[in-house]
Amino acid sequence: MTRIAICAPARPITRAIADAVTALATMAVPRAELSFHPQCFVEQGHFAGDDATRLGALLQCADDPAFEAVWIARGGYGSNRIAAGAVAAMGPAAREKAFLGYSDGGYLLAELYRAGIGRPAHGPMPVDCGKPGGEEAVRRALGWLCGDDVPDMLEPSLDRQPAVAFNLTTLAMLAGTPLMPKLAGHVVMVEEVAEHLYAIDRLFFTLMPHLTGIAGLRLGRVSAVPENDRPFGVTAEQIAREWCRRAGVPFLGPADIGHDAANRVVPFGLASPPPAP
Amino acid sequence: MTRIAICAPARPITRAIADAVTALATMAVPRAELSFHPQCFVEQGHFAGDDATRLGALLQCADDPAFEAVWIARGGYGSNRIAAGAVAAMGPAAREKAFLGYSDGGYLLAELYRAGIGRPAHGPMPVDCGKPGGEEAVRRALGWLCGDDVPDMLEPSLDRQPAVAFNLTTLAMLAGTPLMPKLAGHVVMVEEVAEHLYAIDRLFFTLMPHLTGIAGLRLGRVSAVPENDRPFGVTAEQIAREWCRRAGVPFLGPADIGHDAANRVVPFGLASPPPAP
Repeated sequence: MTRIAICAPARPITRAIADAVTALATMAVPRAELSFHPQCFVEQGHFAGDDATRLGALLQCADDPAFEAVWIARGGYGSNRIAAGAVAAMGPAAREKAFLGYSDGGYLLAELYRAGIGRPAHGPMPVDCGKPGGEEAVRRALGWLCGDDVPDMLEPSLDRQPAVAFNLTTLAMLAGTPLMPKLAGHVVMVEEVAEHLYAIDRLFFTLMPHLTGIAGLRLGRVSAVPENDRPFGVTAEQIAREWCRRAGVPFLGPADIGHDAANRVVPFGLASPPPAP
Repeated sequence: MTRIAICAPARPITRAIADAVTALATMAVPRAELSFHPQCFVEQGHFAGDDATRLGALLQCADDPAFEAVWIARGGYGSNRIAAGAVAAMGPAAREKAFLGYSDGGYLLAELYRAGIGRPAHGPMPVDCGKPGGEEAVRRALGWLCGDDVPDMLEPSLDRQPAVAFNLTTLAMLAGTPLMPKLAGHVVMVEEVAEHLYAIDRLFFTLMPHLTGIAGLRLGRVSAVPENDRPFGVTAEQIAREWCRRAGVPFLGPADIGHDAANRVVPFGLASPPPAP
């Protein structure tokens, strides 16, 4: 049995989503035992409760030795406000725990990875269950959380180099803050949703000075780009290639990640740590 | 006579705007002699010409000793792509020149200030002439460019402390890049337009680690905030106050700047340098 605690460091989910994910897990991954923290359903303005409420729930999930994993219910906005405080307060039960999420959840994954706490990974969240194809996404997430070998679970380019994956806005906004992990030697994968191409260009401008020494950059899906009043003139891939060239960073091609149900799992660091000698 | 060169490091303006600004200057500020570089009217995708075209025009304006000032025609997006290259290449004629603009123009102002070149200032641009009340904005800009004492020209809180002013997104996106000037001891003023309150909160999260040691923060107007699917729960001023509190930075109150025709001029550094002893 793998016991998975679910909390919402940013925005809340509905009970209908929690029920759908629970039903799916019961049927498809019976060894996963899901525990939705009641904080997942708290609504307070934009957030799933105020900072103290969200931080408290996250700590309860991370610090309870009854759970092997913490699953981030949903993104939105808000985990940047509590990530540093939460990780600083985490106790020994959090040290080996898996933490899975993406989008705004990236702030927490970054801070965990920077602090060397737990096993953070970028991948599907419970909220994805409501999307077309979302059941497959949830199955992939549960597979990784339970340590199973699910087909198409991991991002296919993962190899012997350490990797991380982030939403582009999330990584650009945390670059230069105390939450930014050291990424030298890493393959860095980024994806984006609902941003104008000029804004994507600007995000790379902000981000690239902080990616000196990485092994290379991969571009995930860039979806739902809004129409601008005039065409930007180049594609998202051309933008990524040009900023890589300017920064002297190898552009390594696509990554199978994105704000969609096909989003694969990217464990931070080495996907398969080498066996002990 | 004050000769003012105008170029467009980001997006182009129309000839109608140039004609309106010229007519206004002829009538109201006859000592201002405006010279619109033809690059102001170039359209190439999103930009007023490609990077080389925009950089070339900016250098021609900055390096020509026939001009006392360079006026940024318009914001949009793009000056971050050429600011470092342009400032690095500027010759001696740029050293004492005034540079005026705001919004995306802030990338160039930041890099000039960082490099100690020219007299950068945050204030109205030619494109503002087309807005309601825009003629007053242009008159204020021309007054500062010509060294006149126009009523309501300077931001009223300016005192013996050095100051800078930026669009919040612009400053957050350049913080942590090589363009960021040292701002310790400065009053930092920020304004914003057309950003969700959650995004404003996120911009302060990104920015504040780079404002350690500033004299304080002032908040200009935050306008055209889009409706979110749920209320964020606090105002822009509450957001600014909270991030100042977290960072140990004094919140000094409002600033009379914004993406509007009332935008006042904020010369970077000391508004009125003390007379030589």
